Amino acid sequence: MKIKYDLLKKEKNTKARLGKIKTNYGTCLTPMFMPVGTRATVKGLTPEQVKDCGAGIVLSNTYHLWLRPGEDVVAASGGLHKFMNYNGPILTDSGGFQVFSLAKNKEKDITEEGVHFKSHIDGSSLFLTPEKSIEIQNKLDSDIAMSFDECPPASASYEYLKNSLERTLRWAKRGKNVHSNENQALFGIVQGGPYEDLRKLSAVETVKLDFDGYSIGGVANDGESKEDMYKAIDYSIPYLPEDKVRYLMGVGEPIDIIEGVIRGIDIFDCVLPTRIARHGQAFTKKGKINLNNKKFTTDFTPIDDNCDCYTCKNYTRGYIRHLITTKESLGGTLLSIHNIRFLIKLTEDIREAIKEDRLLEFRDQFIKNYEIKKK
Amino acid sequence: MKIKYDLLKKEKNTKARLGKIKTNYGTCLTPMFMPVGTRATVKGLTPEQVKDCGAGIVLSNTYHLWLRPGEDVVAASGGLHKFMNYNGPILTDSGGFQVFSLAKNKEKDITEEGVHFKSHIDGSSLFLTPEKSIEIQNKLDSDIAMSFDECPPASASYEYLKNSLERTLRWAKRGKNVHSNENQALFGIVQGGPYEDLRKLSAVETVKLDFDGYSIGGVANDGESKEDMYKAIDYSIPYLPEDKVRYLMGVGEPIDIIEGVIRGIDIFDCVLPTRIARHGQAFTKKGKINLNNKKFTTDFTPIDDNCDCYTCKNYTRGYIRHLITTKESLGGTLLSIHNIRFLIKLTEDIREAIKEDRLLEFRDQFIKNYEIKKK
Repeated sequence: MKIKYDLLKKEKNTKARLGKIKTNYGTCLTPMFMPVGTRATVKGLTPEQVKDCGAGIVLSNTYHLWLRPGEDVVAASGGLHKFMNYNGPILTDSGGFQVFSLAKNKEKDITEEGVHFKSHIDGSSLFLTPEKSIEIQNKLDSDIAMSFDECPPASASYEYLKNSLERTLRWAKRGKNVHSNENQALFGIVQGGPYEDLRKLSAVETVKLDFDGYSIGGVANDGESKEDMYKAIDYSIPYLPEDKVRYLMGVGEPIDIIEGVIRGIDIFDCVLPTRIARHGQAFTKKGKINLNNKKFTTDFTPIDDNCDCYTCKNYTRGYIRHLITTKESLGGTLLSIHNIRFLIKLTEDIREAIKEDRLLEFRDQFIKNYEIKKK
Repeated sequence: MKIKYDLLKKEKNTKARLGKIKTNYGTCLTPMFMPVGTRATVKGLTPEQVKDCGAGIVLSNTYHLWLRPGEDVVAASGGLHKFMNYNGPILTDSGGFQVFSLAKNKEKDITEEGVHFKSHIDGSSLFLTPEKSIEIQNKLDSDIAMSFDECPPASASYEYLKNSLERTLRWAKRGKNVHSNENQALFGIVQGGPYEDLRKLSAVETVKLDFDGYSIGGVANDGESKEDMYKAIDYSIPYLPEDKVRYLMGVGEPIDIIEGVIRGIDIFDCVLPTRIARHGQAFTKKGKINLNNKKFTTDFTPIDDNCDCYTCKNYTRGYIRHLITTKESLGGTLLSIHNIRFLIKLTEDIREAIKEDRLLEFRDQFIKNYEIKKK
């Protein structure tokens, strides 16, 4: 079967929704944060450690797996779940974002047919089309595939965005036409930058193509402001059907997750928790801390008070600082576990707040605590 | 209490022994392989993963912990077990080996008092003495401390080795005099290169100082031959008491472990299993394999048939090759788990062979399988 989304409850004071996604690899509740496993591995974590963080869906990257080891290798192993030993649901992105952000020297040639660009690994010439992206994802056999879209930079003009989203609509249709994996859902992506009419146009036309879920893209490319992000959501959500899941791509700052949920978003993904972990940073309820800071040398308390993650139950800031400063990989692993758990726990708390119609209070209290630390 | 060694059985056809070491953090059987956690972490593994490999004692490095984070930091956290969250027994080396192998530009000035050298991290001037080494280890609060010794290179002359081991004897005595941790055993180290009379002299005089266990050093410094290693063991063992444990430092090649046990050794340590893992190499019963080899791309079998480790139960050669070639740290973690388990399982099999007095057959069969692959 493909995925099935059930809307369980709408919050009274916001557009927030409590929902449930049924997949062939288990059922997850939304709002949800998806850890990112770019190359078929959430960096530094075993699948058991990912699951222990409370993870539902994990995201993996089509572009990276296309290049290495290749979708045919993954398919030969029995598909992505078997390949990476993750028996939970997996979403693959379309490769679009990576083509636009990782292409060597960012040189690319966008045609109606697809995108010509150079590999970020060896500079070889590559050509990705909507059909190819879907074919790769069909072979990877993820539970959710994403349509191939153009991700224009934040600096793109209205004119550019309009032409781009219209092409992305044509690409979405072409991708859908070749999609052939009966156990895989396919999501459409709404683009249009911070413009109300463009987001409306993109949402309405994408929904007409009847996807299994909808994503809002173009909010985390390079340099979009929070305001633009909120606009992109606010201008898109009214045109998305209530009975389909809504996914805000590439967003992982705690406050953005809360604000996204308030605006009607169900799922999020971001490399942030693992990326900042490898640089020694950790989320806490009072804001981020940097374990490279010398003051943590003899701090033998957990990263975050009352956190229920494996790291906080067993290790101290002082020890993790030692691992980070000596470049021991366990440091990144322990901080990644904490940071992923932090965001997943945040969505669990958000779900409780939605149940009790107190999400706005929850947001205000969260921000208040987070701000204390910032000063 | 300090550790307690019980000799359970002597093998009929060799000098191999089955034994038991009781520590404040649990009891382990010998022969045993100790994984190395240089900087209070077995590289890339959680303590649970280390334990799941069947590990008993873990080794950590005094020199590294002295420099970072400092023994006082470890002591303030509650000692090394608490600091690194390892509730099994820990052995710390003396720092001697690192002073001689890691000192910046290998510049060092060995005096009767101790060794002046430069930090491998920042080039700062350091001075390590037998007393200081023991004081650091007392504070680290490991279960077993090692005497501070000089580790001469394989190229050292007879004359040099004689003077060196005599000084090492004086250092051993000085260290023992300041040793003050009642829960920590202290081992002496036998030096003397490949010379029978020097090994005898060193062993006899070290035993006179009455340590809680004895180590054979100078077999894995830089470029000692296997022949020299076997000589070092054969010339030392006759003078070591039966009721104390015997530790061959820095040895981790499977065949060397078997040959060491046959010659009377009880415990071994080596960075080999984790170091080669990070470079993509894995032990198998048919010899080492290198997962960087392209032929493993679509090999969806486990690293080693019938291996009971977490890695072999859940992952394929193809997936691990993918992780190694894309430099994903999980690759090193999974191979480290396998390689550590491989050596620990080897010692478990050795123990079974000793019980049944068939260690020589076991060796011959092991070498035969291992050689097949080499061709």
